[in-house]
Amino acid sequence: MPHPEDCQYCAKDRRLTEIMIEICTLQVSTLYLFREQTYRGRCIVALNVHQTELFSLDDETLRQFSKDVAKAAHAVQKAFKPGKINYAVYGDLVPHLHYHIVPKYMDGDCWGKPFEMNPSGKKILNDEEYGTIIRAIKKHLAA
Amino acid sequence: MPHPEDCQYCAKDRRLTEIMIEICTLQVSTLYLFREQTYRGRCIVALNVHQTELFSLDDETLRQFSKDVAKAAHAVQKAFKPGKINYAVYGDLVPHLHYHIVPKYMDGDCWGKPFEMNPSGKKILNDEEYGTIIRAIKKHLAA
Repeated sequence: MPHPEDCQYCAKDRRLTEIMIEICTLQVSTLYLFREQTYRGRCIVALNVHQTELFSLDDETLRQFSKDVAKAAHAVQKAFKPGKINYAVYGDLVPHLHYHIVPKYMDGDCWGKPFEMNPSGKKILNDEEYGTIIRAIKKHLAA
Repeated sequence: MPHPEDCQYCAKDRRLTEIMIEICTLQVSTLYLFREQTYRGRCIVALNVHQTELFSLDDETLRQFSKDVAKAAHAVQKAFKPGKINYAVYGDLVPHLHYHIVPKYMDGDCWGKPFEMNPSGKKILNDEEYGTIIRAIKKHLAA
């Protein structure tokens, strides 16, 4: 499927960069840090090609995408030691396949409930703080 | 990891059967129909062994589980033609790996927003209605 111009994950324009920061590329996807950090370490793993459903992927791409998601989640787990990772593909309005990787903490927001997509008391950090989180994730991706 | 007795996905006891109905087994998982059908066709794909994170699976199990999830979602897509499938692994309190497969409809509940885990205006059907939905999913699983 061609990259449609109106898709923010294909265009990688301000619609994307305003809400996430690229960390690195993985096998078939790109890992981003979600700027809103109510859930410390929250990331997005976006497929590099424009597909909208898991069943639209060929077997090898699905295998690699699943590995990328697991690898990213594992790095977040090792870096921040949450009680559980939540994984979600929504995309009703932005259907390009992307997983939300959301670490949940037993003493943190929404433990035992679905994470909030856009928490109202937004936790936006400064560049130095984002840098610290990104370095921690990268360190554990490489390990 | 052994099947802990306090896990409803391992015990398959009333805690499970009160909220879902087994449809069939897949390669490494079991497909259930979620009794609450606000999102027509909503299912759960639960891994057959007790693991709690995607990164805890060996490569082959992760590959097969991902295929099972994609296959179930595809059957739901073909049976009910939603606008988008949502996929989510939460499990803070019930950590045994299970995907919620939630078909979303453009004119339906929560389009463009995360699905409700337990909708307040619960849509509980009768056995005949569940049977109709299960047959439609099974037909497309086999296709």
